[in-house]
Amino acid sequence: MPKVGIVMGSDSDMKVMGQAADMLEKLGVEYEMTIISAHREPDVFYEYAKSAEDRDFKVIIAGAGMAAHLPGMCAAIFPMPVIGIPMTGKVLDGQDALYSIVQMPPGIPVATVAIDGGKNAAILAAKILATSDPELLQRLKDFSKEMKEEVEAKAERLAKLGHKEYMAQKAAK
Amino acid sequence: MPKVGIVMGSDSDMKVMGQAADMLEKLGVEYEMTIISAHREPDVFYEYAKSAEDRDFKVIIAGAGMAAHLPGMCAAIFPMPVIGIPMTGKVLDGQDALYSIVQMPPGIPVATVAIDGGKNAAILAAKILATSDPELLQRLKDFSKEMKEEVEAKAERLAKLGHKEYMAQKAAK
Amino acid sequence: MPKVGIVMGSDSDMKVMGQAADMLEKLGVEYEMTIISAHREPDVFYEYAKSAEDRDFKVIIAGAGMAAHLPGMCAAIFPMPVIGIPMTGKVLDGQDALYSIVQMPPGIPVATVAIDGGKNAAILAAKILATSDPELLQRLKDFSKEMKEEVEAKAERLAKLGHKEYMAQKAAK
Amino acid sequence: MPKVGIVMGSDSDMKVMGQAADMLEKLGVEYEMTIISAHREPDVFYEYAKSAEDRDFKVIIAGAGMAAHLPGMCAAIFPMPVIGIPMTGKVLDGQDALYSIVQMPPGIPVATVAIDGGKNAAILAAKILATSDPELLQRLKDFSKEMKEEVEAKAERLAKLGHKEYMAQKAAK
Amino acid sequence: MPKVGIVMGSDSDMKVMGQAADMLEKLGVEYEMTIISAHREPDVFYEYAKSAEDRDFKVIIAGAGMAAHLPGMCAAIFPMPVIGIPMTGKVLDGQDALYSIVQMPPGIPVATVAIDGGKNAAILAAKILATSDPELLQRLKDFSKEMKEEVEAKAERLAKLGHKEYMAQKAAK
Amino acid sequence: MPKVGIVMGSDSDMKVMGQAADMLEKLGVEYEMTIISAHREPDVFYEYAKSAEDRDFKVIIAGAGMAAHLPGMCAAIFPMPVIGIPMTGKVLDGQDALYSIVQMPPGIPVATVAIDGGKNAAILAAKILATSDPELLQRLKDFSKEMKEEVEAKAERLAKLGHKEYMAQKAAK
Amino acid sequence: MPKVGIVMGSDSDMKVMGQAADMLEKLGVEYEMTIISAHREPDVFYEYAKSAEDRDFKVIIAGAGMAAHLPGMCAAIFPMPVIGIPMTGKVLDGQDALYSIVQMPPGIPVATVAIDGGKNAAILAAKILATSDPELLQRLKDFSKEMKEEVEAKAERLAKLGHKEYMAQKAAK
Amino acid sequence: MPKVGIVMGSDSDMKVMGQAADMLEKLGVEYEMTIISAHREPDVFYEYAKSAEDRDFKVIIAGAGMAAHLPGMCAAIFPMPVIGIPMTGKVLDGQDALYSIVQMPPGIPVATVAIDGGKNAAILAAKILATSDPELLQRLKDFSKEMKEEVEAKAERLAKLGHKEYMAQKAAK
Repeated sequence: MPKVGIVMGSDSDMKVMGQAADMLEKLGVEYEMTIISAHREPDVFYEYAKSAEDRDFKVIIAGAGMAAHLPGMCAAIFPMPVIGIPMTGKVLDGQDALYSIVQMPPGIPVATVAIDGGKNAAILAAKILATSDPELLQRLKDFSKEMKEEVEAKAERLAKLGHKEYMAQKAAK
Repeated sequence: MPKVGIVMGSDSDMKVMGQAADMLEKLGVEYEMTIISAHREPDVFYEYAKSAEDRDFKVIIAGAGMAAHLPGMCAAIFPMPVIGIPMTGKVLDGQDALYSIVQMPPGIPVATVAIDGGKNAAILAAKILATSDPELLQRLKDFSKEMKEEVEAKAERLAKLGHKEYMAQKAAK
Repeated sequence: MPKVGIVMGSDSDMKVMGQAADMLEKLGVEYEMTIISAHREPDVFYEYAKSAEDRDFKVIIAGAGMAAHLPGMCAAIFPMPVIGIPMTGKVLDGQDALYSIVQMPPGIPVATVAIDGGKNAAILAAKILATSDPELLQRLKDFSKEMKEEVEAKAERLAKLGHKEYMAQKAAK
Repeated sequence: MPKVGIVMGSDSDMKVMGQAADMLEKLGVEYEMTIISAHREPDVFYEYAKSAEDRDFKVIIAGAGMAAHLPGMCAAIFPMPVIGIPMTGKVLDGQDALYSIVQMPPGIPVATVAIDGGKNAAILAAKILATSDPELLQRLKDFSKEMKEEVEAKAERLAKLGHKEYMAQKAAK
Repeated sequence: MPKVGIVMGSDSDMKVMGQAADMLEKLGVEYEMTIISAHREPDVFYEYAKSAEDRDFKVIIAGAGMAAHLPGMCAAIFPMPVIGIPMTGKVLDGQDALYSIVQMPPGIPVATVAIDGGKNAAILAAKILATSDPELLQRLKDFSKEMKEEVEAKAERLAKLGHKEYMAQKAAK
Repeated sequence: MPKVGIVMGSDSDMKVMGQAADMLEKLGVEYEMTIISAHREPDVFYEYAKSAEDRDFKVIIAGAGMAAHLPGMCAAIFPMPVIGIPMTGKVLDGQDALYSIVQMPPGIPVATVAIDGGKNAAILAAKILATSDPELLQRLKDFSKEMKEEVEAKAERLAKLGHKEYMAQKAAK
Repeated sequence: MPKVGIVMGSDSDMKVMGQAADMLEKLGVEYEMTIISAHREPDVFYEYAKSAEDRDFKVIIAGAGMAAHLPGMCAAIFPMPVIGIPMTGKVLDGQDALYSIVQMPPGIPVATVAIDGGKNAAILAAKILATSDPELLQRLKDFSKEMKEEVEAKAERLAKLGHKEYMAQKAAK
Repeated sequence: MPKVGIVMGSDSDMKVMGQAADMLEKLGVEYEMTIISAHREPDVFYEYAKSAEDRDFKVIIAGAGMAAHLPGMCAAIFPMPVIGIPMTGKVLDGQDALYSIVQMPPGIPVATVAIDGGKNAAILAAKILATSDPELLQRLKDFSKEMKEEVEAKAERLAKLGHKEYMAQKAAK
């Protein structure tokens, strides 16, 4: 049974939201992904947010751009954590969405991640679930180890090749 | 029967929203003012926005600060114009609220006025109603004339006194 | 007889202003579109703004970029609503135009929509006219329903295909 | 045994962090609060972050201003959720701290709340713990109900008094 | 006969505009100061801008805050230099006025000075007139020398007193 | 004998500075253009700024990007008007150069034009010289008329073709 | 013989520059402090920057606000490190000075510290000198230890008192 | 033995960091370059920063993007100068990294250079080492002379060719 709901306001957000989904899969966390616009279909949205607890969601990941109301409105209704991803739009580099998501008034937090931070939203969702799931916590630790090893491998490669050759080989790929 | 609904997310917004109300009174436009938080009472908010048309509202003026979702969510439900007032909060000078209100996605406009622009929200509401109310249109023209005369009086005063005396008398008040 | 005047400062704004025109057509609202620069031909501009009421305009949609004075100067002269569209220019992502349009001083509101928000300007104009036109109001409600159905169709498609296949088919188009 | 660690970089942050502590108390969540500077005592900080899991912390709330590294460095070491609070400093209204906290690179999320958002950090921590604690979830729902009733009471008061009297009585307090 | 017109949109700008006037007096340049709102009295404004050349103005100094259109609209009509002073308002530190004044489209420049830069606007006006007035040029050079001597005197005082005593004596004033 | 000096900090600024030169030519104003870096050759720069008056310059147009010190340092030495053009660099859209040029301290103004505003810098220089040159003033008025006619021609074309055909023909060019 | 020159553009910067001086004294580093305006006395400034090496300065600390050219112009002339302190002015929170100092073009770096960061400028100067002065390096390490102990003492105090009592005692001071 | 450590958080920073390395080579300064992520491998990072003094590093150049903690955390541990390079990421033009690096709290300075300022970081490192290395100081002076001659050559070329031909030849390359 999925524990994480992934919801986006528009299918133009799907590239970033797909990174969240892929990361959850990698960490072995079930999810359910959908498109719901708080602005274009407020009734559908309300029904979604209200029923989320009954569908056993523990976390909702919501992404939106511009005047991004979706994460905050989810957080107004769903009683467990809502993670918000500010999306870049055609202008302003996502600064508008960042403010619309992070600056929630007292009482209604949204756990905001970086602009276009789909991968980090998934990791944060997993960290939340890991507070009561030791096996998931172990998988997160394994993932951290993996990230560390990737950086170490690059450092070794740089030490061996020097930066000019490293860049040349990278460009050649 | 009030034609303008004034709604704010918190009573900390009442000083600015009161300026909207006072201006509507001056222009002879009936209004109804209330406090509704889209975040803290989403059900109350939905009921308000859905019933607004039946209560014969033609325009809603909505003010909110920070991640200001109230105007945009009103515009998602109410089919006639919603005017949004971005409010200054403790930080960021209202820039967060401005983005959260003006940057609405295609399909759901909010008619945004200046930060803390309570008076202008009321005048805009009156201009909207004046598109089908010649008497209100006349009152708006009279108000414009009044504004013009005020500036002219100041210009005359400055010409007579010079700027040093003008400032001295202003400071003495 | 056109009820909406669409005016832009330069033909480089026509792509966005054309979206406003197209949307008005879709909603069955007559309009008249022209190019007038408040800076390069102030006399022509004054004449336009002053005669707008006599030509039976009820709303003016004005778009401009950079130090965007056109919407605000229209609002100084035309007694009914002026909708301002901040345009992106070569730099600053339209932030300069947004401030130049939305931050109008008390007494002279401009109903500001999102940066490059041509479509929303048209919908807002229609919402304004719909305050006294029940048939237009119905068309706006039909348009809202259409937007809702589009999102629902996308959500169903996502549920059926999964995000990877959805994205693959989208990219293939 | 405390499940939430509250850590701040300087005692100038204590007013906001105290709001987090007070909110946790209200929600019946145990916490442990301390002052640790990642910059001024990196060894103490490392020891704290590394031992946090053994001390049974499930969530860390970290607040910092300026180039706010404390939350992100906690998140680099502690495997469960870290909530970051950007603090206002003498200049820039907390924008510097917001970027330093929310813009974490892929792999290391910080759950960022509003600038100076101590209360929301606590509620988010409680929401995280409530994913596996039905009683805490109930207390969160009760708190939401309480917030709703407060707004309703204000709306009733406004309806009864009108905004002028409401403001007058508020000012008189 | 005054060669410099000083015009402001509101008497709230008079403190800064007065600094311009005082500086012109010090440099021996005649001016005429008035209050004209391009927004509240567009006809008065047009008349002013159009007649400025006939009244023998060579430079106009225009100050305005928020969506500051006054300088740019002057520059659209008056064929000689217009100097624009962006004014701070209640929010945004004058950033809105700066963009509204400096970002003029090709063809219509405004010579923009610093936010609240009344004194510099006057000096710039004098420098413009000095391109054809050797005596004024000499007075500008004398003023530069005076500024230099003031800084030198402070440097000597600091060398003599040390910074602690310097600050103590300054605070004692 | 050239009356306008055009100086840029780097040849990467030449495209914009060339627009200034071309505009001066069109207006019949002689100029002399060079490249001088205040940072990379301070001695050359000092010599240039100090000798500018003797070479009969009446106005200097200085363009620079990033921490743009060239215009301000010219203004510190040359006693007549200096016009500053903030240049866009690889990042920040010229905002850094704008602040570095416009925010001059009291006593040392720079007449700042729009970001990358080469054409406007030239027109402003001509307007300055026109304060004592009636023929140049007439050429400026002719240029204004030309700009007006260009916009009018576009408006007529739009009226004749409609916006869809207008855009289609524009794209076909 | 002083190894650090401290220079500020105006005595309004002396409070922050005095913090730099006090910190240098605490670290046992000799300095010489003066006031020189690159804008108001360019000749004095040039002489200062050119003679700095002969006077045996190894580092210059330069503070300035607004369009802050002093640090960058020092760096253009003095061949050893220049540390720049962006100062807050009346508006913009020092953002203008930050850009004017940090965004130096390739070839001419300024070592920029935080806005109003007088203390950090001094520590950075000492760190620079400590690259060839083992005793100063030791004093810097002692200072780091002192900072660490101060934080530890506060943490102990908080553990003993709790945050309410801690704040109460702090407020009582 | 290398005196400068160059460290970056990710190999996506290598292009800019390579410019630092190349510049150090040109100035005859030995360096050692590596990739270490303070977030993904905090233990490796700590070991690096703690051992840097023993490895005889006198300066560390650290580059990072987004919430850029690497330079500041280096500065918290390494007792000699740390130079920070804010990197542009996919959004925000490096503004996030700039704040995360320059706004260090009192006690822990980072010598910040321009966004993507790899070359300037290297020159600053060399200037720091030159405070006790007269030969390196001479090489820096030679490099300054070279920069000056490059600009002079361009100025001569412009004087000879005129800006149109200069641009044409530049484009032809």
